[in-house]
Amino acid sequence: MQGFIGELIGTFLLVLLGCGVNAGVNLNKSNSHNSGWIVITMGWAFAVTIGVYASGFLSAAHLNPAVTIAFAVNGSFAWGEVVPYIAGQMVGAILGAVTVWLAYHEQFEATEDKGAILGTFATGPQVQNTVWNLVTEIIGTAVLVIGVMALGANQLADGLNPILVGAIVAAVGLSLGGPTGYAINPARDLGPRIAHAFLPISGKGDSNWSYALVPIVGPIIGAIVAALLYNTVLPL
Amino acid sequence: MQGFIGELIGTFLLVLLGCGVNAGVNLNKSNSHNSGWIVITMGWAFAVTIGVYASGFLSAAHLNPAVTIAFAVNGSFAWGEVVPYIAGQMVGAILGAVTVWLAYHEQFEATEDKGAILGTFATGPQVQNTVWNLVTEIIGTAVLVIGVMALGANQLADGLNPILVGAIVAAVGLSLGGPTGYAINPARDLGPRIAHAFLPISGKGDSNWSYALVPIVGPIIGAIVAALLYNTVLPL
Amino acid sequence: MQGFIGELIGTFLLVLLGCGVNAGVNLNKSNSHNSGWIVITMGWAFAVTIGVYASGFLSAAHLNPAVTIAFAVNGSFAWGEVVPYIAGQMVGAILGAVTVWLAYHEQFEATEDKGAILGTFATGPQVQNTVWNLVTEIIGTAVLVIGVMALGANQLADGLNPILVGAIVAAVGLSLGGPTGYAINPARDLGPRIAHAFLPISGKGDSNWSYALVPIVGPIIGAIVAALLYNTVLPL
Amino acid sequence: MQGFIGELIGTFLLVLLGCGVNAGVNLNKSNSHNSGWIVITMGWAFAVTIGVYASGFLSAAHLNPAVTIAFAVNGSFAWGEVVPYIAGQMVGAILGAVTVWLAYHEQFEATEDKGAILGTFATGPQVQNTVWNLVTEIIGTAVLVIGVMALGANQLADGLNPILVGAIVAAVGLSLGGPTGYAINPARDLGPRIAHAFLPISGKGDSNWSYALVPIVGPIIGAIVAALLYNTVLPL
Repeated sequence: MQGFIGELIGTFLLVLLGCGVNAGVNLNKSNSHNSGWIVITMGWAFAVTIGVYASGFLSAAHLNPAVTIAFAVNGSFAWGEVVPYIAGQMVGAILGAVTVWLAYHEQFEATEDKGAILGTFATGPQVQNTVWNLVTEIIGTAVLVIGVMALGANQLADGLNPILVGAIVAAVGLSLGGPTGYAINPARDLGPRIAHAFLPISGKGDSNWSYALVPIVGPIIGAIVAALLYNTVLPL
Repeated sequence: MQGFIGELIGTFLLVLLGCGVNAGVNLNKSNSHNSGWIVITMGWAFAVTIGVYASGFLSAAHLNPAVTIAFAVNGSFAWGEVVPYIAGQMVGAILGAVTVWLAYHEQFEATEDKGAILGTFATGPQVQNTVWNLVTEIIGTAVLVIGVMALGANQLADGLNPILVGAIVAAVGLSLGGPTGYAINPARDLGPRIAHAFLPISGKGDSNWSYALVPIVGPIIGAIVAALLYNTVLPL
Repeated sequence: MQGFIGELIGTFLLVLLGCGVNAGVNLNKSNSHNSGWIVITMGWAFAVTIGVYASGFLSAAHLNPAVTIAFAVNGSFAWGEVVPYIAGQMVGAILGAVTVWLAYHEQFEATEDKGAILGTFATGPQVQNTVWNLVTEIIGTAVLVIGVMALGANQLADGLNPILVGAIVAAVGLSLGGPTGYAINPARDLGPRIAHAFLPISGKGDSNWSYALVPIVGPIIGAIVAALLYNTVLPL
Repeated sequence: MQGFIGELIGTFLLVLLGCGVNAGVNLNKSNSHNSGWIVITMGWAFAVTIGVYASGFLSAAHLNPAVTIAFAVNGSFAWGEVVPYIAGQMVGAILGAVTVWLAYHEQFEATEDKGAILGTFATGPQVQNTVWNLVTEIIGTAVLVIGVMALGANQLADGLNPILVGAIVAAVGLSLGGPTGYAINPARDLGPRIAHAFLPISGKGDSNWSYALVPIVGPIIGAIVAALLYNTVLPL
């Protein structure tokens, strides 16, 4: 139960702050409208850091089903905890996206661009191509998971870990976010996409369900590959 | 008395550096004119961090009446200290705003845009709507307060806390600052608004008192909600 | 063997994330297209930090032949380890560049500008002049090496070192990257240049081999000068 | 002697990296040309951090005559060391500026704008007014000095101090750098201005000696005021 609650709170903050920065940059009548990639990537990086601090004393602060699966594959996380963790992450992600809609209500009202509205919630590719979009998400998530696992192999001063997880997400975003917007986290994409589907946003378009599997399958494959690679390299 | 002095110094630095970055970006004849949201948000984040370092050995370094109230509601701060703390925060905020006016005197002279001048001191909404503006400030302040309380639940290496409070403010600014400019602090808004009202700035307009209650009431509600939520979740 | 593996992994991540940020900024159909110098320099800085965390428990995390040579000249690294280290760095750099091509496959397809494609992989001068380009690379690498050596003379809390190496690379990039794009690392330039030469990128131009020696020779000279300077100053 | 050497090395790196970022942004044919205020302020912040790490094990790493004077006024630094410290800072600053000229030689050749060339070395006001320019430099330096002194009153994990000094300089730059370009350090301005005067830069203009006293006198006044204020407040 504590795991479910911790993941719910952490992922709620992650998605509230992450999709929040998307809203600020994408929507009209916002101070941060069109403020660029450095704002997006720093917003998501701080979002992760805050989410990890706010949940790490309750759960393992994965905030990401792919990370949870990776640690289970890796052998350092109990398989029995996987379902409650992912459930908490999904509930948190949906609630976070709903809260973004509340905070930016007037900005949604002032925006007609359907792509800008959807892009506030869910990721999408710059060039749609299922195979290559999957490859990008696999690579990005593998870097995330290897980075997070490597942190565990380092001695870290108290309180440094959540900053560094934020740094890894900053790195992946800055460097590998160009093609698909770096979902690298099934809950981060699916939760807000579900919220987009049911929220009464005036003038919204469809939720692009045809792409929805890519940011679920890609991150899971990437996480499993990374966990296996990490277990192979570590004993060397 | 030490609490009053500490909060005064810390909030003075917070508002001097925070409204200072606003001045640099808003006013003409400034090196940082129109340098964008990343400059604004990083400026306020560093402002908080410096303010906390410069006051934390005298007071609890709240620098924000909403945070002071939240900790009192939470039970971890004495109600008897609330008034001297808020008094120190208000005096510091007013003096900080006056000092911004001194540092940017020639830039105020070179600027005719009344909105740019007021925006250097006080926050304002991109779309005026009392209910939704309140909602935005409530959400932003709740994230701030939950983040700050969560830091207290983490083991932190010496000296890391003020950096992390800055990171939380960066996160709130980047992600939730779009609609209303993230007051999330009644002193940060009211103090400089008072300074704007009495300072002899040539060509300034009115101080938009019709909006002044939102960045007072919203943050206080948000802080109380966050404190109650935090107390509910922690025992789980 | 552990040294070879560690350097391979760390340099792989460094080049994947570093040339990744180049790809995002340079190539068409990317979220980070034309997002500017702050994105490039922060991308490379985080790339170094992640690379050091992910390899530092296996090797000394040099990720750079010039740094390896500098520590050997300095007397604090065994000459016998120099060749396996550099071999690992070169293999890692080539594989990292290949992986960038996979992650950004559709963006390479969408880009016709030969200079943007080459610039994703290899550095090049804004004004070609062998002597002055060498001078710039020598100065930049000397700052890198002196900075890294100076970290070793400071007491650092656990886990701070990789952040600070990233900060040094950020500093060199922001401040000395203007003229030649700060290779400051022979493997970082030669590895991706080799990848550019053999990868089947449609519409790519030549790999500018006429410049390839500068980012090899300059960094090595700079590193040796810095190591000798450091050894001269330290006993003072 | 160690104090002289330490300050020379640290200030050399500070000015090389600081005026280096100016060169990159100001001069033609540079990757960072016109990359904005966030690049300038982050460049100087990292410059300070690297300079402090590279000198702090030899001297007190002031890198700034105003800081040296402040600590002497404060009673925590021996007056007899003030002259060798300032001498080291001035020699380091001049050599740093000369090295910027070497690193950016081809960019200086490609630039005809006399203001851009001078601005690479020395600060200047956006609106020239001796009194108000002094006020701005006094305020900025007072914040710097109070910030640095306040760090000494905090418990800090090993190695955090140089990062935080960089954060203070980032804060002052972002927030108070708009009007005069934040010299806040007599050596940082006078050293490069001397270099500008004697270096054989083609097409350079005069070195604006009429302004040269402001960034010397202002910072010294600000530092003394801050030291006295700090000594007044601390016993409260």
